[in-house]
Amino acid sequence: MTSDPRPSQDPQMSDASGTESDPTANAEGSARSGFSRRRLIASAAVAGGAGAVGSLAGFGVGRASHKQVDEQPRRDTQGANGAVAEPFYGEHQAGVETMPQAHGEFLAFTLKPGSTADDVKRWLRLLTDDAAALTQGVAPLADSEPELANDPARLTVTFGFGPGLVRTAGAAKVPSWLGPLEKFTIDRLDPKRSRGDLLIQICGDDPIGVNHARRMLWKDSRAFAEVAWQRTGFRRSYGSKGEGKTQRNLFGQIDGTASPGPGSEDFTRLVWGRASGRKDPVFSSRGEPPSDLGANLPDWLQGGTTLVLRDIAMNLETWDEADRPGREFAIGRTLDNGAPLTGTSEFDDPDFKAVDKRGLTVISSASHVARSRDGLGPEAQIHRRPYNYETGPGGEAGLLFASFQADIERQFLPIQRRLAEFDLLNIWTVPIASTVWAIPRGVKQGEYVGQALFEG
Amino acid sequence: MTSDPRPSQDPQMSDASGTESDPTANAEGSARSGFSRRRLIASAAVAGGAGAVGSLAGFGVGRASHKQVDEQPRRDTQGANGAVAEPFYGEHQAGVETMPQAHGEFLAFTLKPGSTADDVKRWLRLLTDDAAALTQGVAPLADSEPELANDPARLTVTFGFGPGLVRTAGAAKVPSWLGPLEKFTIDRLDPKRSRGDLLIQICGDDPIGVNHARRMLWKDSRAFAEVAWQRTGFRRSYGSKGEGKTQRNLFGQIDGTASPGPGSEDFTRLVWGRASGRKDPVFSSRGEPPSDLGANLPDWLQGGTTLVLRDIAMNLETWDEADRPGREFAIGRTLDNGAPLTGTSEFDDPDFKAVDKRGLTVISSASHVARSRDGLGPEAQIHRRPYNYETGPGGEAGLLFASFQADIERQFLPIQRRLAEFDLLNIWTVPIASTVWAIPRGVKQGEYVGQALFEG
Repeated sequence: MTSDPRPSQDPQMSDASGTESDPTANAEGSARSGFSRRRLIASAAVAGGAGAVGSLAGFGVGRASHKQVDEQPRRDTQGANGAVAEPFYGEHQAGVETMPQAHGEFLAFTLKPGSTADDVKRWLRLLTDDAAALTQGVAPLADSEPELANDPARLTVTFGFGPGLVRTAGAAKVPSWLGPLEKFTIDRLDPKRSRGDLLIQICGDDPIGVNHARRMLWKDSRAFAEVAWQRTGFRRSYGSKGEGKTQRNLFGQIDGTASPGPGSEDFTRLVWGRASGRKDPVFSSRGEPPSDLGANLPDWLQGGTTLVLRDIAMNLETWDEADRPGREFAIGRTLDNGAPLTGTSEFDDPDFKAVDKRGLTVISSASHVARSRDGLGPEAQIHRRPYNYETGPGGEAGLLFASFQADIERQFLPIQRRLAEFDLLNIWTVPIASTVWAIPRGVKQGEYVGQALFEG
Repeated sequence: MTSDPRPSQDPQMSDASGTESDPTANAEGSARSGFSRRRLIASAAVAGGAGAVGSLAGFGVGRASHKQVDEQPRRDTQGANGAVAEPFYGEHQAGVETMPQAHGEFLAFTLKPGSTADDVKRWLRLLTDDAAALTQGVAPLADSEPELANDPARLTVTFGFGPGLVRTAGAAKVPSWLGPLEKFTIDRLDPKRSRGDLLIQICGDDPIGVNHARRMLWKDSRAFAEVAWQRTGFRRSYGSKGEGKTQRNLFGQIDGTASPGPGSEDFTRLVWGRASGRKDPVFSSRGEPPSDLGANLPDWLQGGTTLVLRDIAMNLETWDEADRPGREFAIGRTLDNGAPLTGTSEFDDPDFKAVDKRGLTVISSASHVARSRDGLGPEAQIHRRPYNYETGPGGEAGLLFASFQADIERQFLPIQRRLAEFDLLNIWTVPIASTVWAIPRGVKQGEYVGQALFEG
């Protein structure tokens, strides 16, 4: 048993997905993962082994919009999606506008004391290379279990920067919003879980691939940083429902109805904002005027966005003691199909003025939907991409509430302030961790995630 | 907010899967889950509410073999399998011969002190009703989040009895093999995790459905028992690979090649054994003579089998330090496709006599495959149905090694003794928990799991 932590790479040509024998795989420039593994391995080898950063830049993966891929994921005749790859290279990082996958991992790191900008750049180059390979079903060079990378199943790896990391590139570059949120009276935050310099969000439809990616990215981080905290969540699996269906949380509640749909104009306006680089003003789908959401994103975040990640503990025990009408009153929607109490289907607009026979509003002004929507302007919308967790019977349960928005101050905080002030759902929920992240733009081949931060 | 732990049942007719509007759903007696939810709810209501045990007996779910279902699972045009239900009623319990699902939960309980046979019977009736409903995508009567039960995604619930539970039905009924295995020098067993009176194995392709079933079954157990321990595992997700592919564990090793295939004659002989109730002697697929495996299963286990469940901790850190040839030498198979080192494809028979140029056997006699197969008779075969786990980066990792066999003494122990004596893989693995369970036969409508134990 020799001891070599970087075993020689095995071409894995026996596995069919994504190799030349795959009839759906195109030559270079394919919008999907149809590139030759043989070519990849060859070019990686030429580039000089594991120490050579940027060594995966030699192969051609075209830049497709996520939308393009979501509409036509490559599946085999059994409906399998193991071979489906989300594009890694592109204007934006994947894992934000990507249709949410079944499994989500959130892994936060703290930089080792004394880390320099060069240290961070080397780390980000390594992680970028790892993510570029793993998401395409290819084992990174130092992968000691390369076969576990074979089936990406829509794996995405998304990086977020905390203030400590940004500071290594120059103190002037830390935006004012990048730090702890203001204190809310409902919060009971664990400081150990409310910190971190780098966040890696790993999502995929296959738990083996997600687990493998987490291990690989963690191993390549150990020289640079310590794990600050880690959390694992789940949603409906691939194949359980048609894609795009709104998820249910562990209260049984349909969760995320008002979130802008991936690929929509609203999404661009609300999540990528000004930083989308669009020259035309973007009107909302309701005809609202163009906004300058994201105007406070610094230049190095052009093409990026922000993430507020909150761990909301949910008391399933006391929720189970509430009856169904009481729960629906608290939410302002039916549990059955998520329709507002004034409507019949999930996407009906709530009518906050409708009254019942007694003259009371059908949707209580104290309900979750009223508190989070009524009276707030069109800017106060966020893209929710939450994951559920329950550690065991009687264990911890809750929601990893991931909220993406161009502007935390104008989109997230107005909603959060109102919910913290009063929301019937607060009876059963407690925020126990909270972090804010800058999500850099996507990368081109040869670049590393966050490069603009270190070059600007 | 009133406090009613048993909310009125909502018919959930708005969800399409499995209702009358589903064109693939047949009338009563369908081999799959195509029964009317409306009818189910009606009959359950007539039967008198949550207190009425056996209240789900009024609807027609035909008894199909698992094989029949595995071959033609019902999927929608997107390849979705959320609506696919494994039959609950049948000769054998589901979750043994069922093609392994992506997610597995193992939940062990200890009976409350002083529990009587009547207590246990009431508990088993309740759990049987719960499982009969949940596995068919139907919320049990006391389900406070009924929508989370909507998509079974091949959910199975399998019950195993420990000696303490069997003892409540009469001390003479505890078979000699039902208890701790003999001590192996490699074992480092945690006594808290190596005990239990009832095991519930919950498997499914959707993590929300599996989590919900776990919570539901746990809630209905709290009056009767305490949780002894709990473990969660994963395999390749539905849709990542064609079904039936052998799984990989976290060493990247293809794991379970020699396991008899569900639906095969070998499976019947090795897992259901004598207790299968077959009148004709069953020859093995290699032409070996009929055996009387399972002759030591008591009458109340007719149609059942045994489960040895061992938690094998895997040291991923030291495994990563081993090079690829060293690992393949230890396993006796390639990591690439699982072929024996003397063959080219996974299912080739290992040639333990083949020698290399130096005159040494190609497959080392110390390798895992040689230790577990060479020199052992045809009886020494088991059905493995393992699940992987890793709690976090740098956390606990391993394999929930579930082994089903008709006869522990003649099938499992000969293999285990040899592996405990010597196996190169022991360098990286440590058994940290071990339990043995009697798996009762399946039930007919109106029966409860384990009924034969209390009636015999």
